[in-house]
Amino acid sequence: MEIIETKKLWDNYEELANTNICLVGWIRANRASGKIGFIGFSDGSSLNTVQVVYKLEFLPNFATISAATLNSSILVEGRLVVTKGSKQPFEIQATKIDVLKEADASCPIQKKHHNNEFLRTISHLRPRTNKFYSIMKIRNELANSIHEFFKNNGFVLVHSPIITSNDAEGAGESFEIKDTENGPFFGKKALLTVSGQMAAEAFAQIYKRVYTFGPTFRAEKSHTNKHLAEFWMVEPEIAFINLDKLTIIMEQVIKHSIVYLFKYAKDELEYCNNNIDKTLIERLTKVVDSNFPRVEYRDAVNILKTAVAKKEAKFINENIFFGMDLGTEHERYICEKVYNSPTFILNYPKRIKAFYMKLNEDGTTVAATDLLFPGVGELCGGSQREDSYQKLIKRCNELQMDTNGIQWYLDLRKYGYYRSSGFGLGFDRFVMYLTGSDNIRDVIPFPRSHGQLEF
Amino acid sequence: MEIIETKKLWDNYEELANTNICLVGWIRANRASGKIGFIGFSDGSSLNTVQVVYKLEFLPNFATISAATLNSSILVEGRLVVTKGSKQPFEIQATKIDVLKEADASCPIQKKHHNNEFLRTISHLRPRTNKFYSIMKIRNELANSIHEFFKNNGFVLVHSPIITSNDAEGAGESFEIKDTENGPFFGKKALLTVSGQMAAEAFAQIYKRVYTFGPTFRAEKSHTNKHLAEFWMVEPEIAFINLDKLTIIMEQVIKHSIVYLFKYAKDELEYCNNNIDKTLIERLTKVVDSNFPRVEYRDAVNILKTAVAKKEAKFINENIFFGMDLGTEHERYICEKVYNSPTFILNYPKRIKAFYMKLNEDGTTVAATDLLFPGVGELCGGSQREDSYQKLIKRCNELQMDTNGIQWYLDLRKYGYYRSSGFGLGFDRFVMYLTGSDNIRDVIPFPRSHGQLEF
Repeated sequence: MEIIETKKLWDNYEELANTNICLVGWIRANRASGKIGFIGFSDGSSLNTVQVVYKLEFLPNFATISAATLNSSILVEGRLVVTKGSKQPFEIQATKIDVLKEADASCPIQKKHHNNEFLRTISHLRPRTNKFYSIMKIRNELANSIHEFFKNNGFVLVHSPIITSNDAEGAGESFEIKDTENGPFFGKKALLTVSGQMAAEAFAQIYKRVYTFGPTFRAEKSHTNKHLAEFWMVEPEIAFINLDKLTIIMEQVIKHSIVYLFKYAKDELEYCNNNIDKTLIERLTKVVDSNFPRVEYRDAVNILKTAVAKKEAKFINENIFFGMDLGTEHERYICEKVYNSPTFILNYPKRIKAFYMKLNEDGTTVAATDLLFPGVGELCGGSQREDSYQKLIKRCNELQMDTNGIQWYLDLRKYGYYRSSGFGLGFDRFVMYLTGSDNIRDVIPFPRSHGQLEF
Repeated sequence: MEIIETKKLWDNYEELANTNICLVGWIRANRASGKIGFIGFSDGSSLNTVQVVYKLEFLPNFATISAATLNSSILVEGRLVVTKGSKQPFEIQATKIDVLKEADASCPIQKKHHNNEFLRTISHLRPRTNKFYSIMKIRNELANSIHEFFKNNGFVLVHSPIITSNDAEGAGESFEIKDTENGPFFGKKALLTVSGQMAAEAFAQIYKRVYTFGPTFRAEKSHTNKHLAEFWMVEPEIAFINLDKLTIIMEQVIKHSIVYLFKYAKDELEYCNNNIDKTLIERLTKVVDSNFPRVEYRDAVNILKTAVAKKEAKFINENIFFGMDLGTEHERYICEKVYNSPTFILNYPKRIKAFYMKLNEDGTTVAATDLLFPGVGELCGGSQREDSYQKLIKRCNELQMDTNGIQWYLDLRKYGYYRSSGFGLGFDRFVMYLTGSDNIRDVIPFPRSHGQLEF
């Protein structure tokens, strides 16, 4: 008999009523009493387990089945019976169950509550729990949504390099590759990339719209809930557009992803809503329906100043001035208290932003934006790029940068570079936001951070 | 006026005849004589440039336009005119051309033939040539085809980690992360991954069908045309299937990708066919239509032996025996001369294959397969995995492996691991095959190999 997926059963159980079906997967729950037993069965295709009912009268190996441990793999044949009114809308009445491989009772995943800290120590097993099944599935569908959005909008994917000689941006926070016995393998210092932006900019000058989607690295020793040493970034880059147009695309990507998840990861979002963050679906629905406000950095500073003056807000750092780097407390006040929405902050002082951002006509600010999210803070940052070779070189000199390794990048401005804008989306932080998770270690299969390198 | 893409013009020029359109992009060719000029225009959305005709009588800045250099960015407004019978099926008769940004005449990409070696030194610019435009576009569409195939077939994407502590397989060919001033950042030796398989196996025991698609690394000093230090791999893993079923999926992936490219990268494949390998499209068509032969390693050895004995083949290494590792010359003989088709070799001697492959009942061979391609050699390798914890440990001991770092991986066998099979597809080599390219450095945006780390 052909094996069918439980997802197909959930989608079509009324049509499949009273037919014989065959399943292969794992035991997630098993209880038996005397003559009848019940298995919670999963084959990984659906978050929801399927109830398999087995009876002594039909199954000569009833004793074996009822003794089968959690996580054991089994083959089930039986009839699908619609069970209106009961907790499960259908069940499988087994005519045959083969235990394919018994799991050790020592398996750390058992039918009880495991906390997130413990589950991090068994990252290879944790998606066997409903919570991590849901989070990793949402992560997968989010990746699909990213590829779909960019494909539908004519973007070309660029596999930007991981090993690079350029640390213009890294400022000492890059991982370095160790030399071989005979010196540097590549003949020079080699680092792990902190961003694919430069490669993306080069290719945007050819295909106009491109994006990268790959791992990036920071040798930061921060032990916060929001930092990893290895994380995934999406970095779109679009030639010929300015900052305003860029924010429109940023907003579209976010909304497209949420709509996509509502379609392809509905069960998993509901699970997260019920078990991680009760406001999740309401919050995401609101985001899709809203227009993200745009506020100038300059105005944001004034809002904060006024709030402090009027004692409407209390910050640890109340020294608010134009030129300051906004702290998370300030960012959250803006997007949570003032706008209660994802919010773009625009045109930051050049002093606190990267060298490649386009200098505005005021000579003080650059055409940069951060997109702040309630509860999360910065989720994406983007900018229009400096297109003037002279201004870019001037800025590099002001910052006393060694431009040797990036001369090719600066040179792009000489070869028909009229305009280009792009942004970076922290993929893992986005998964946090979309699942209600409060620790980034819980949204990536095998987290890497300072002092942590298991699996 | 709204900007339109040249791809849309190529798709719909008959409908758009005599309408006014606006384009933004780059000059790829420009010649003028007295009162009329012609620009070969690209906006990156199509391989084919659009001919823009500009006339002194309509354009007051005619002199500026006719002096505009290659690579300069321009805005064009004009009327689309269908030009039946001429080389181009339509052209744009310009009513306005703004030179947005003049390119330096020093730009290394000019209207002449550049060889591949030179173009590798300007990897950031080379897709401005038709050849590299086509190759990188095909690479992009191939990535899309991979995601589509796996999504349509219910696979979950796993972001397997790049930094890892496991070098069980690497055998000294892994890159290592340099320690910080205060010792190892991760508290232990950290390497760049050579494969995402172990992570994939763990997740296949949950979602049943998973795949990875990411960068992998080898610190190999080989200077061949087929090796890179950093390359991309697709590694699907499927629980509950055996080697036979695996080969069916391998064959499906290959065929799906080719069919997808015929649909989404037709122009680029034709360019490669006409300019790189005249047999390309014929060859790919044949692959789609064929059934890949399966031949036992044991039989392949006998075929080779016979060929040598009968002097039907000439090899550098004619010492053919069961247990040998087939050389490229032998592999090519099998798939090119004997079968003239992509060919699966099945059930290799365990001695020449990896520790995790399932030992066959003969006690000598493992359930492994290589898929050999004419002209390329091995494109994918896969295996059914050893599912017995005891046998796996025994094999690790035979090979005197340090299993400390992979105990979690071995333990999977204890927790309901009935069966699992998977394969690795060298993404860059597949791009070589699909474009007719003979050097792997030409199919990845910024190649990294021994002594080579530019950009």
